[in-house]
This record gives sequence, structure tokens and C-alpha cells, in this order.
Amino acid sequence: MRGNSHDSSHPEVKDQGRRTVDWLLHSADWLVTCNDHMICLRDGAVAIEKDTLAGVGPSEKIRQQFAGLQEWDMTGFLLAPGLVNTHVHGAMSCFRGLADDLALDQWLFEAIFPAEANHVNEELVYWGTLLSIAEMLKNGITTFCDGYFFEEAAAQAALQSGARAVLGQGILDFPAPDQQDPGRSRQRAEAFLKNFPHGHDRIRPSLFCHAPYTCSAETLQWVKGLCREEEILFQIHLSETRQEVLQLRKKHGLWPVEYLDTLGILDGLTLCAHGIWVNPEESQLLAQRETGIAHNVGSNMKLAAGVAPIPRFLSEGVKVGLGTDGCASNNDLDLFGEMDLTAKLHKVYWKDPEACPASHVLKMATTGGAQVLGWSSHIGSLEVSKKADLMALDLNSPHLVPLYDPVSHLVYSARGSDVCHVWVDGRQVVSHGRILNCREEEIIGRIKKITQKLGSLQ
Amino acid sequence: MRGNSHDSSHPEVKDQGRRTVDWLLHSADWLVTCNDHMICLRDGAVAIEKDTLAGVGPSEKIRQQFAGLQEWDMTGFLLAPGLVNTHVHGAMSCFRGLADDLALDQWLFEAIFPAEANHVNEELVYWGTLLSIAEMLKNGITTFCDGYFFEEAAAQAALQSGARAVLGQGILDFPAPDQQDPGRSRQRAEAFLKNFPHGHDRIRPSLFCHAPYTCSAETLQWVKGLCREEEILFQIHLSETRQEVLQLRKKHGLWPVEYLDTLGILDGLTLCAHGIWVNPEESQLLAQRETGIAHNVGSNMKLAAGVAPIPRFLSEGVKVGLGTDGCASNNDLDLFGEMDLTAKLHKVYWKDPEACPASHVLKMATTGGAQVLGWSSHIGSLEVSKKADLMALDLNSPHLVPLYDPVSHLVYSARGSDVCHVWVDGRQVVSHGRILNCREEEIIGRIKKITQKLGSLQ
Repeated sequence: MRGNSHDSSHPEVKDQGRRTVDWLLHSADWLVTCNDHMICLRDGAVAIEKDTLAGVGPSEKIRQQFAGLQEWDMTGFLLAPGLVNTHVHGAMSCFRGLADDLALDQWLFEAIFPAEANHVNEELVYWGTLLSIAEMLKNGITTFCDGYFFEEAAAQAALQSGARAVLGQGILDFPAPDQQDPGRSRQRAEAFLKNFPHGHDRIRPSLFCHAPYTCSAETLQWVKGLCREEEILFQIHLSETRQEVLQLRKKHGLWPVEYLDTLGILDGLTLCAHGIWVNPEESQLLAQRETGIAHNVGSNMKLAAGVAPIPRFLSEGVKVGLGTDGCASNNDLDLFGEMDLTAKLHKVYWKDPEACPASHVLKMATTGGAQVLGWSSHIGSLEVSKKADLMALDLNSPHLVPLYDPVSHLVYSARGSDVCHVWVDGRQVVSHGRILNCREEEIIGRIKKITQKLGSLQ
Repeated sequence: MRGNSHDSSHPEVKDQGRRTVDWLLHSADWLVTCNDHMICLRDGAVAIEKDTLAGVGPSEKIRQQFAGLQEWDMTGFLLAPGLVNTHVHGAMSCFRGLADDLALDQWLFEAIFPAEANHVNEELVYWGTLLSIAEMLKNGITTFCDGYFFEEAAAQAALQSGARAVLGQGILDFPAPDQQDPGRSRQRAEAFLKNFPHGHDRIRPSLFCHAPYTCSAETLQWVKGLCREEEILFQIHLSETRQEVLQLRKKHGLWPVEYLDTLGILDGLTLCAHGIWVNPEESQLLAQRETGIAHNVGSNMKLAAGVAPIPRFLSEGVKVGLGTDGCASNNDLDLFGEMDLTAKLHKVYWKDPEACPASHVLKMATTGGAQVLGWSSHIGSLEVSKKADLMALDLNSPHLVPLYDPVSHLVYSARGSDVCHVWVDGRQVVSHGRILNCREEEIIGRIKKITQKLGSLQ
């Protein structure tokens, strides 16, 4: 079977002098590296040793250097780095399609907040996050950056699934599903960090202040202080709606990015989700502070929140990754869809058919994502010594033929369902489109039971 | 196997008095009818007799009325009408991803037109159209409206594949791949109509004037005249770019819709593709004349052509269907993607989260499409006496769970790859995601060969 054949007996290759690695994936129609030069190779190969890429290059060369305990012929496949989803609320898969086509206030206050207050618990977070991870892995997303409540349960789901993750415990100055008393949110955050599973290279803790309009300056500062102590990512929703920006300017006399900067929040380990209503001075500030933006194009469109100035961000050197946001506002977790949206929306909105070309968009979904998470030395591209996080797409479909440019195909023609095999940290987590570490049927069954009550609210 | 089990021995159902039909599809989790009231049923069924829907309703009722020669248990599936693609250039699948991220003029004059002039022939049109049909059928598109050259070859592809189609022979006042002498384009059109395969209810001829800026008033009028004689659809690209509108106003002192109206072109069997730069008076004129618009949202975005005033069209009663456009400007043929784009783009662009709600968008992709093609008495919805054109989506995937609202899922969560079975005219054309009337491998092989020369142009 293609993509599954052990052919270590290849006659032209001698075993002598070859370094033995765990995996040798060779003869891929295309190898898209997403390295700095965006090199794409025909007939490419990767060698994987434990969790790391030991070799990346032309098949002939890699097969001369390495022998694999598993050797797969990837003829008919495209190999690319796993995608990085920089903003998601995994557990909100339970609210997928619960409330569409509503104004943001109505959606949030009449549908989502009540559903969360009444139904979110550890069980929902565990299974909801696992459902999201199943969807993401199948769509080639190897790393996701989460933010929600009961985030210990999300961490358990991530550990079990084999996905790579940054897991942000949510904090706000209002009662939350896992902390009714906002006065005790510091203890909540500290307990989360203390109990976070240790010794796992694949998952990292984070703290997530909901927004400047739900967290006081004091809260923002102690949370960022904790993040600095622990050297972990600080996340926040920022400048998602025009209204919140106007409110903040009225209250503090500052634009949101300026406000965070005066509080000392901005640095290379702060990630701002949305960043739509950001003025030119603020983008320069973001670039100077090396603060990243998670661009959630589908969610921003669906909620009519606005269009983030992505071409300006890119030209000014602001770090940008792509995010799906939660399923309640998208309603799926497929970065192929988000890449297509990003490439197309900015062209029509900024009246420039050359805006956000495919290569820039693919970078946002890979190396850009790795950068905004502070993880770019390990993930985002297929390069020697990086972690072995990658996906293999089956090119043998009518919608992927002909193929003149693999980058164009990844952005404009492929979709999550073309992903056939996925590896994270050198371990295969998706095989022939099926997740390996969890039972999809069990997850779906549990979710149906958990969400039964929610449906009756409609 | 689900969706494939013969269970005519169901104990509660008596055969006496039941009318025997060809297919009885029952116990679908959801039946989305797309009728005038947008009725969606749980546990729904359809009975198919020859090419026609004999029964549509709750499983219990339909199973009391009908016995099927084939009876399938559709538990875990959603049944919906096949989607209607109102604007495509099938053969252009050969140019998929050949030239992206370019200004429209550069894209058209430096990439597409030269490729067409040098490479388009009967063979390319036949195989390219067949490739597009394979992709469309797999994505649940049961009817497509094509426009290209050598359209006899496209008709052969449509006939062979089992798809329903309107096939528009392209006409313009410049040399075309199948008619070097524009002075003989009338003979070309007449020959096309004369030789069009007769006795096939499933395919209809059409004539396609490229645009007002490539066809003289005289050409537009004789072509529309021929269409009126034959009672067939007249197609035209209209108001796709701001520049073409300015040019036409300079030359004729009229906006494009007004111009076509003064020439007597507008009626219920004229279909305008794009219709982006249409002013409010023109939309009223389109509504009065019952002239349809094919909204190609993805192509319009990718080429930065502009945003069509769809909410205004809908509120003023202009008939709107969705189209994919050709693969050279999209770059795929998936109306699920176009539905998602339509619902999201108009929300953010017109700053209204309630614009283009899911139900309106699904109507555009089904009944709206049927209307603009002048085929709504036969297709577009699952209703008794309409043609049996339908699709079955497998709901058993992480990204389709939970399911609170099937219409939301069709627009915002599902994608073409969820389509498992498809019927056109009462015949199954896709089974378990595979096309039945053509060999996908053969089509892909032929296309790779035909497009080999094109790749080297890059």
C-alpha cells in the first residue's frame, strides 16, 4: 500500500555506513520544508530519530545517509510540517453550531456565557478538548495553543492524544466555571502551574487573561509576572471589536496595545488573539516588543468583528500566526480553511490581488505560529534538529490535480481531509486518516451524551 | 455497513399496499429538504422512482407507503438536495494553481489567455471537464452550469459521468480556441446547438457571451435571439471588475446592467456571472427582469475583483445562485467552501453578523441555483415529483459533532469530503466517496499527461 510499504531491500542502497533511524520517509512527490527560503523539493525524504528530524532533503541523499527501522515509500504524497493552531478553545467544540448568525453581544451574553455557566465542568473540558484534538490532528494540526477553564483536564487530553500543546488556564475578574470567587484567581493560577504535568516535553503551561475589559490592570500585571517567573506564554484577547477599543480609550485614554505596553505586558512571550482594531503606531509597538498576533480570520468574519491589518503587520515585522478560535464561532478547526480564507479575504478587502500570497500564508500557519508561541527553535519547519512534527497529504485526488506549485495547493486546494498520516514528536498519531491514541467512536459517543442537555436549550 | 444495508425485512412494515420504488433511503439522522419552509426532519426518508422523488418525509410514513427494490438504512447520515454550481469553466481544472496571487490583468493576459491559446483543444476540454465533474460529484454538486470552448466535448464528459449540466458554448468577437475567425461565430453557435446530444433530459445546451467588453452589441443580440428561439439559458460575465464598468460607462454612457437591458438581453433565462459592481437601480432592474446572478465568492476574493452586494440582491428579490468559477481562480470546486465563504465574507464586509445567515446561503446553493438556471421545477430541493438529485453526508466525524442544527453544519462545518453517496436523476453516481461512471485513476493519469507541457511554462 502506498505510504505504508517497507522497502528496506531497495537494491541501489547499501546499508553499510548508514545511520539507523526510527523512520525513513522517502520518495515523496513533494517535500515542503517551510524553511527560511521556503524550499520545496521533488522526490524528498525525511529521517526521524526518536523525536527529532535527523535528515531532510532529496531522497537519494537521505537514503544514502540513513537506514530506517520503518521505511515508507511516500510516492503520491506531499510531506510538510505539521500546522500550528495559535488560538483555540478546545472544549468549546461542545458548542459547535449552538448559536450562529448573531451579533457578538447577543452571541456571547445570550448563548455562550449561559451555556458555559450551566454546563462547563471538568468532564466537558476533557472530552470537548479531546474531540477538538481529534479533529485537529486529522487536519494536520500538530501543535495547538489553548485557552479555557479546567485546563488541567485539557492537559490530560493533550497528553493522551499525542498532540503538542500550549495550555492556557483562563483568568478573569468575574466568576468562572472553575473559580466562582475572582478574589481567589491567583491561587487558582498558582495551583494550575504547580500541578501541571511535569517531564513532558510536548505540553507547556500558559496563563490566559481573558481581555483588558474583563481583567483589571492589577490582574494583568500579576498574571504576566507569574508568566515571567515561569518563562511561559501569556495570552490575551485583544482589540477584537471596535466597541471594546472605544470603551478602553474612554476609560484609560489609550489604545489597547498602548495600554498593555504601559502596564509592561508586551514582550516576545505575550500572544494577542485577534488584534483587529490596531492602529499603525500600535503595530510598530507590537513589532518592537516582538509580541505576536493570533489571526483568527474565520471567527473574525463570522462574528463580523472586523478585518485585522495583516498585510501591514507583515510589512512592519509583527509576528503573525493563524488560529481557528473555538468551534462556537467558526465552526470547525481546519487551518487549511483558515489559510484559504486569509489569502482570499485580505486580497479583496485591501483591494490588492497580490496581498497575502500563498507562501506568506503557509508561513503564518507553520513558522509564524511557532514564533508567536515562542517555540520556533523546535517546530514550524522541516529542518534537521527540529522536532519531527509533520503531515503527509495524499495527492491522488481530483481536486489536487494537476500540481504546478505545492505551496499553492496547500493554501488554495487542499483541505484537512487530504491529510493521511501525521507524526508528532516522532510518533505517528494519525494513520490513514484515523487517530491512533484515542478511540474516535468513544469520544463522539461521550460528546453526544454530554451535549444532549445543551441541544434542548435552543 | 451503514448506508448500505438491505433491510426490507423490517418487522413492523407490511409489504401489502406499499408502492414499489427503486430506492428507499430511510432512517437518516437528518433530512434537509430545502423546500420553501426550509423544513429539516429527524429520522427522514426519501423514496425514489426512476428519476423522480416519489416520497419525502418521516421514515415511518414513507416506509408505510413505499417498498424499495433497494432499501438503505441511512442512520448516521444527513440527506440533502444535491448542490447546484451555477458558474464553472470545467476544462480550466487543467490550469489549477498555474498562476496565483496576481493582478487580474496580469493573470488573464500573461498566464491564462496564453495557456488557453496554446493548449486548449477538444482533448483538454473533455478530460479537464471530466476531472472537474469528478471533483464536483464527490463534493455533492449534482448540477453544474459550464461555459467554455469545444463545449461538445464538455457535453460528452457530462453525459458519461452521470452529472446534470447546462453546457454553454463560449462566444466572443476575438479568435477563440475552437473558432479562429470571429466572423464565423454564429455558424459555430448554430452547429453546437444542432449537434447537441438529443434525448437526454439531464443535459441542456446554452450559449455564453464572454462579456460586454469582448462581444459587440450586435453579437449579444444575435446570441440572445438564438437562445430565445431555442428557449435555452444565455450566460455572460458581468460587472466583475470596477475597471470594466468604468470603460463601459465611458463608451456607452450606461452601467452594464442598464446596457444589457437596452439591448433587450435581460429576462429569466439570462444568467450574469459575478455581478459585483452593480448599483441599486441595476439590482432593481435585475429583480424586475427576473435575471439571475451567479455569485462566485471565492474567485471574486482571490482576484480582488470586489464584493458583490448579495444582502441587497436578496432583499430586493434578485435571484442568486452560488458558483465556484473555474479552477484557475479559486482553486477548487467545492460549494461547501463557497457557502462558508459567502456566509462569512458578507458578515464582515457589510459589518452585519446577521447578514447571509446559514439558511439563506444553503438556499443559494440549492434552490437559488436551480432558479437562476431556469430549472427550479425539477431540481434544488427534496420535494415529491422533483428529480432525485441528492447527497448523503456521513455525520460520524469529529468536526460534525455535536449537531444542534443541520443547516448550520452544512454551511459552517461540513466539507465536500463528508459527502459519501450521491444520486443524480435517481441513479447513484458516487458511492462511499468514489465516482461510479468513470475511472478516477484514468482521468488523473490523462490530466497529468495533458498538463505536462503547461508546467514547464512556469
